[in-house]
Amino acid sequence: MRITALAGGVGGARFLRGLLAHLAASPDPARREAQVTVVSNTADDVTFHGLRISPDLDSVMYTLGGGIDEVRGWGRAQESSGVADELAAYGAEPSWFTLGDKDIATHLVRTRMLAEGATLSEVTAHLCARWAPGVRLLPMTDDVVETHVDLADGPDGAERRVHFQEWWVRLHAAVPAVRIEAVGAEQASPAPGVLDALREADVVVLPPSNPVVSIGTVLQVPGIRRAIVETAAPVVGVSPVIAGAPVRGMADACLAAIGVPTTAAAVAGLYADFLDGWLIAAGDEAPTRPGLVVRRRPLLMSSPTATAELAGAALDLALELAGRERAA
Amino acid sequence: MRITALAGGVGGARFLRGLLAHLAASPDPARREAQVTVVSNTADDVTFHGLRISPDLDSVMYTLGGGIDEVRGWGRAQESSGVADELAAYGAEPSWFTLGDKDIATHLVRTRMLAEGATLSEVTAHLCARWAPGVRLLPMTDDVVETHVDLADGPDGAERRVHFQEWWVRLHAAVPAVRIEAVGAEQASPAPGVLDALREADVVVLPPSNPVVSIGTVLQVPGIRRAIVETAAPVVGVSPVIAGAPVRGMADACLAAIGVPTTAAAVAGLYADFLDGWLIAAGDEAPTRPGLVVRRRPLLMSSPTATAELAGAALDLALELAGRERAA
Repeated sequence: MRITALAGGVGGARFLRGLLAHLAASPDPARREAQVTVVSNTADDVTFHGLRISPDLDSVMYTLGGGIDEVRGWGRAQESSGVADELAAYGAEPSWFTLGDKDIATHLVRTRMLAEGATLSEVTAHLCARWAPGVRLLPMTDDVVETHVDLADGPDGAERRVHFQEWWVRLHAAVPAVRIEAVGAEQASPAPGVLDALREADVVVLPPSNPVVSIGTVLQVPGIRRAIVETAAPVVGVSPVIAGAPVRGMADACLAAIGVPTTAAAVAGLYADFLDGWLIAAGDEAPTRPGLVVRRRPLLMSSPTATAELAGAALDLALELAGRERAA
Repeated sequence: MRITALAGGVGGARFLRGLLAHLAASPDPARREAQVTVVSNTADDVTFHGLRISPDLDSVMYTLGGGIDEVRGWGRAQESSGVADELAAYGAEPSWFTLGDKDIATHLVRTRMLAEGATLSEVTAHLCARWAPGVRLLPMTDDVVETHVDLADGPDGAERRVHFQEWWVRLHAAVPAVRIEAVGAEQASPAPGVLDALREADVVVLPPSNPVVSIGTVLQVPGIRRAIVETAAPVVGVSPVIAGAPVRGMADACLAAIGVPTTAAAVAGLYADFLDGWLIAAGDEAPTRPGLVVRRRPLLMSSPTATAELAGAALDLALELAGRERAA
């Protein structure tokens, strides 16, 4: 079985870890031997201190490879700040973006390889050779795409544009975004293997990642959305919203910026052209689009067991839909 | 009083610290208010892991700024190896060049500024704004000059060329060098302020730095040697050789590569066209060039006091020579 998942950062990475745990423990040989490909958002990539940083790729790689800081949910466990403290002593900016020493080594390898002409796909494969995340981890594109955000917090509401990370990390998305743009997305090409992984998948899964700045930017890379629309595989997603609030992070601020309500039904609407199955929380209103199969399941990834069960439920729904397809 | 010194790394930095200590403690107001400019070798600069590293500039900056590791003599005190351990885990090469976390911050600032178009002079001034080394620290050039070494350690004596750092740090200069070349030196220009600092100096000092790969490369930058030959200031040096052996480091291996004996007299011969005064150890043979004034002094920089006395002796000799000049 070939499973292809789109993913953002922390939430996506945790869901994927649950998926791998579910597959490994399954009595079904087809699930135990399933091959998982992850198409990662790269639009929150950023260059700080000359280092090229790919937060979402690294969150998936560290989480699945056993190096993640479990408490923060991002970055490396048992981190130190030898470099960062010194950068601060030099007055180097930005000082609000935390870079641990272990993490910096990853960025040094990436930055050097990119400077030497390697693609981000090649860099990611090299880094993953160490981490062995148990999935094939692909960036959505090898081209540079960066999400920028327009804020209207200047005098008299004057707008200014900042990198997504500045809005997200420095401002905690507390300043309303007027506009969110994945700069470079329209000119980008899917990275090698991405379209095939979607076309040839038996199941396509959307973890509960941010529908705007994670899944949303992946879908903006020309060809990816069409490949998902056209794939024969069932496409099943997990709502990132419970009872009108994001499960994790500040997806509500992103949804507000694009004028979409923070509800499980509204997020499903963003995927209306390809979504076959949708998992929502018990108390939430189901979207009513004909042909969309909705199931209510506990969505909180509160423990490894709960997360594995959630991933299993998504897979169950997908295989049920595939069976219907075959029976029809 | 304006004092201009050429300098390499560890030995030069320690001598300069002694010089500043001597000046600060002097009863002579002219010495206490002396301005010291240091022209640093940059030919052992190297790029590892994408980081631009300037070992000699940093040794002077850290030593005079109070950040040096006193035991090793180079790098930062109380270092950690969070980044280096992870680089090793990725299999990143070279693994034999030690980069501490604190030190890496310096290289990140330098690398980013250079990439943004700053000159090495500008980078050095920026870094020194934090370290306040008490001297004006100038790179010998803003151009890229790198010392490469030809080794004949291949099968049947086949030659190969390595960066100086590989010969020095990885091979401990144990493999004889066939040839040492400061690549790029002939096309380089002195950094801003270097020639004026030599022409307008009241005293020019050569610390006991390596006469081949430190002082020697500084002298190879077009215009610098001529400025030293032509300056009205007395030029006084301290022998880096005692009793046929280098005081520190492996200068004998460098001298052998250029066919010069490891003696205080032979090193003075390398500076024959400009050297006015020369400090050697008690038991060493004095060079006999007419006009060169030789003094025997304890050369071992075995304590801060001994180092300050040595620097004071060099300055005493220089001022004595300047007085003779004026009297003549």
